[in-house]
Amino acid sequence: MVGKLRWSMTVRIEQVDVGLYKVPLSHTMKDSTHGDMSDFELITVRIIDSDGAQGLGYTYGVRAGGAGIWALIDRYLRDVLVGEDADRIEFLWQRMWWCLHYAGRGGPVTSAISAVDIALWDLFGRRASQPLWKIFGGYDPVVPIYAGGIDLGLSTEELLAQSDRFQSEGFRAIKMKVGRPDSREDVARVEAMREHLGDTFPLMADANMRWSADKAIKMARSLQPFDLLWLEEPVIPDDFEGQARVVRDGGIPIAAGENWHTVYEFSRAISMGAVTFVEPDVCNVGGYTVFNKIAAIAEAHNLPLTSHGVHDLTVHSLAAAPTRTYMEAHGFAMGDYMDEAMPIGDGFVTAPDRPGHGIDFDFDLLEPHRI
Amino acid sequence: MVGKLRWSMTVRIEQVDVGLYKVPLSHTMKDSTHGDMSDFELITVRIIDSDGAQGLGYTYGVRAGGAGIWALIDRYLRDVLVGEDADRIEFLWQRMWWCLHYAGRGGPVTSAISAVDIALWDLFGRRASQPLWKIFGGYDPVVPIYAGGIDLGLSTEELLAQSDRFQSEGFRAIKMKVGRPDSREDVARVEAMREHLGDTFPLMADANMRWSADKAIKMARSLQPFDLLWLEEPVIPDDFEGQARVVRDGGIPIAAGENWHTVYEFSRAISMGAVTFVEPDVCNVGGYTVFNKIAAIAEAHNLPLTSHGVHDLTVHSLAAAPTRTYMEAHGFAMGDYMDEAMPIGDGFVTAPDRPGHGIDFDFDLLEPHRI
Repeated sequence: MVGKLRWSMTVRIEQVDVGLYKVPLSHTMKDSTHGDMSDFELITVRIIDSDGAQGLGYTYGVRAGGAGIWALIDRYLRDVLVGEDADRIEFLWQRMWWCLHYAGRGGPVTSAISAVDIALWDLFGRRASQPLWKIFGGYDPVVPIYAGGIDLGLSTEELLAQSDRFQSEGFRAIKMKVGRPDSREDVARVEAMREHLGDTFPLMADANMRWSADKAIKMARSLQPFDLLWLEEPVIPDDFEGQARVVRDGGIPIAAGENWHTVYEFSRAISMGAVTFVEPDVCNVGGYTVFNKIAAIAEAHNLPLTSHGVHDLTVHSLAAAPTRTYMEAHGFAMGDYMDEAMPIGDGFVTAPDRPGHGIDFDFDLLEPHRI
Repeated sequence: MVGKLRWSMTVRIEQVDVGLYKVPLSHTMKDSTHGDMSDFELITVRIIDSDGAQGLGYTYGVRAGGAGIWALIDRYLRDVLVGEDADRIEFLWQRMWWCLHYAGRGGPVTSAISAVDIALWDLFGRRASQPLWKIFGGYDPVVPIYAGGIDLGLSTEELLAQSDRFQSEGFRAIKMKVGRPDSREDVARVEAMREHLGDTFPLMADANMRWSADKAIKMARSLQPFDLLWLEEPVIPDDFEGQARVVRDGGIPIAAGENWHTVYEFSRAISMGAVTFVEPDVCNVGGYTVFNKIAAIAEAHNLPLTSHGVHDLTVHSLAAAPTRTYMEAHGFAMGDYMDEAMPIGDGFVTAPDRPGHGIDFDFDLLEPHRI
């Protein structure tokens, strides 16, 4: 009955708290495009409603941009939100999109909206006392997960040792970086990993936009003998035509999505045949609201769904999606700052039954990194 | 000889000053999407080199977003620029793009890059003692200009009176807003303007993304009798397919571009047949560097080039482009804050022969509006 009473209430957004942090990584990570990374930017959003209930969202920056995201939320989105009905998430999403539309439509704007959207969904789930994966439709809470290594700078020996460590942590699928200046090293490293892991171990490779379409086709063909589950981001995200050629002529499934920021970009890529494994990031695509729409479009095209980063958040959308495949466990160890990091068991995680997305940061641990 | 000596020197960027202002408009303006506008955000960039020479750039926000743009320049782009060779503008452009690429590729990021790119070109022109329109290739400094009315809220009488005022100011072409809730009012207002202005006066109409593709086709057909030079932004900028249908089936040329932010988006729209009059904004597309590339793509497709806003800056690119047509004089009266606003004479402006873009703000006048 209490639940029923709650559903009839209109709950207003009272407060929007935004935090910006520069979080150090335990070790420097490297890929072919972003170079050496020793920290990342974290932007947190807490939304508090008129009952005092809270929802938490976050997004992040790779190397740069976080201060812009912070400013967009702090200066503009707060005004869109405060005083509004917290349950009309799609309505608020549209208002945020149009508030920041001029010089918007992507980039830091969709990251800012993402953090708010995630907080709104968390708040709704907490008030409904339901985990988000059930609210999103409830397919299967057990989701296969892979370790996304950010490891282009590692020697082959270190790479293999990292893969042993990943397996000891419970991972049963691994992604490695490619895109070295000398492409023969890429092929040799993938070959070494395949030999080390065995014929049937799911292995992916990520080029982080390093190549032209023709170079990518050549590389995909060179990598065919090693039976990659997918080759990721062979070209820049703007080159839909080029990536469609890679899908058609490379002979390896292509994953992409971390650098597409709207439902329109995903729809275009999918309808042009420019992607096989659809890989949105809930923290830069516009939050759960958009991630779930992309999942539906991918399903309608019979394409497998994966995800980029932030698995603690994404698990809810993948646990609701019948076409989900391996979910990425991102290399940025945000679990270190969480009250309760999601356990990985024998290649799988299980979406929690806690209300909302079920995670919270230890803000005391984060505080020294506030900027 | 002094010029020659300068050319052999490497000049380093020493300082990047960024300002954020909220500038009031003399009267409230309205269009179908952005609603009532009583002010705009102005973001200024001054780049000072090791010789003490300065370049000025700026960009702007419509309703929101400016603080994000400011933060991106202040916190990240400055570090990309300081100490670097000021003359390698394309190189610096690429570094800015990739610095902010993650959660970038458009939105506030391209606006931030625009302001810097414009300042770098201004600095280069000043050091070379040449106006930018000559550096860009020097086609013809006399550029036709039109008045872009932001006038959806005006009564028909006020609309006609505004057009009289525009003509007394020297304009010989006028754009009006459409997109009222009752579309019959749009048709009646366009008809009234056509009758008032006479059969041969160049008249355009701007829907500010208000319609679906089918609605836009219906509206274009309803407006055919009034011989519009173009109908602008009938649908959202993401709907390339829909706008291509409007071009094909509406029977009126379509202008668009103020909400496309990359050379890739323009190239896609053009190759899909989704635009007739190509209309980039130098302040959100990535500056002169990108505007001039878009001009080349439009020319290669035999499409007329126009522009959005900031005519004091854009005139240099249009004065260099053989396919340029009417340039927009934006409704936001930034000329009020300039040392020397560009005079409009009988439908034309003339690109100045002052070095760089040749404009400067009166920063004392702006100071009260700093935020």
